[in-house]
Amino acid sequence: MLKLFYSPGAISLAAHIALEETGAPYELIRVDFKSEEQRSSAYLAINPQGRVPALVTSRGILTETPAILVHIAQNFPEAKLLPPDPWDFARMLSVLSYVASTVHVDNAHLNRGYRWADDEESIREIRRKAPEVMAADLRLLEGKIGEPWVLGEHYSVADTHLFVMSWWAEPDGVSLADLPNLRAHLDRMQNRSAVQKAFAQEGLAAR
Amino acid sequence: MLKLFYSPGAISLAAHIALEETGAPYELIRVDFKSEEQRSSAYLAINPQGRVPALVTSRGILTETPAILVHIAQNFPEAKLLPPDPWDFARMLSVLSYVASTVHVDNAHLNRGYRWADDEESIREIRRKAPEVMAADLRLLEGKIGEPWVLGEHYSVADTHLFVMSWWAEPDGVSLADLPNLRAHLDRMQNRSAVQKAFAQEGLAAR
Repeated sequence: MLKLFYSPGAISLAAHIALEETGAPYELIRVDFKSEEQRSSAYLAINPQGRVPALVTSRGILTETPAILVHIAQNFPEAKLLPPDPWDFARMLSVLSYVASTVHVDNAHLNRGYRWADDEESIREIRRKAPEVMAADLRLLEGKIGEPWVLGEHYSVADTHLFVMSWWAEPDGVSLADLPNLRAHLDRMQNRSAVQKAFAQEGLAAR
Repeated sequence: MLKLFYSPGAISLAAHIALEETGAPYELIRVDFKSEEQRSSAYLAINPQGRVPALVTSRGILTETPAILVHIAQNFPEAKLLPPDPWDFARMLSVLSYVASTVHVDNAHLNRGYRWADDEESIREIRRKAPEVMAADLRLLEGKIGEPWVLGEHYSVADTHLFVMSWWAEPDGVSLADLPNLRAHLDRMQNRSAVQKAFAQEGLAAR
């Protein structure tokens, strides 16, 4: 049985929703960020980066959200979380990669500027600029995503990944008012029972 | 025929090497960063992010290195650039994702701090810290990669992606002297004819 290490509302939510979509049993293990459990030697043995998610499988431990999402989807083909067309698969990987390496990283600059600067003033400046950078990233996705799902008719793990970005947007200072496609996608996602179950398990609310 | 938009020595080099590995014909189109061609309206129509690489296919344009690498590998299965085992495929995606969203992004802080801060002092501080951040990223890979290739016996597109990071390291201020696995991997890569051909076409030299 797969085990997912998560923190409530973190990017691990994308993998959590994907697991719920499969309908398969899995174990959910909370990493307590308040007590800095992610930096404990026990957790660093699971993920040396000290981050979530980490997926424990019968073959070993997997990190990095795009890899975890694709692996969950490939393990449960009956859930159809991957598009059958190879070009759509490529487009899906492109969205997963853009979300991971641009949108999510730009978001990390809001509260984790210390990763890239030591002095307080620089960290403040990085924090100040973060919402405008994220807004530009989300505008690019606004013009790129399909309807009703990222790839068009076929729902995929790209939807669960993008969803976390849109769900983060408003509390992080990015209004969705001018991003109607992302807003509609967020609403459609929040209507899915997999999202509602993951929200309930993590103690989160719709936005 | 696939067309690759590239800039010499940029991350597009990973896709360039992968194309060379396939032995298939393709077209290479240089984007001139010195004249800021990447911000021209003609290029922004190809990639609205104004970055390389972009891969033009018969189905459309693909961006994001992990997606481009997997797509090239899937299009030319006889080149065996993907591992046959699904778990190895997941591990490969994990490396591609880590390189794209952590190592490469941390590298971008060296010369592109303006993406995350506006004032000169913060940009200087981000630049100062970048080599130590990249060094930590590469240390994590040092302990994780297989031998002789990233996944062990099977050469894959993860090798071309990692290679660019190691090839960038020394000029970007990160010594490979304490990273013998990465140093040996860089050497093995530089012995491959696909790498030597890509170097010759881009006007680059081994390190």
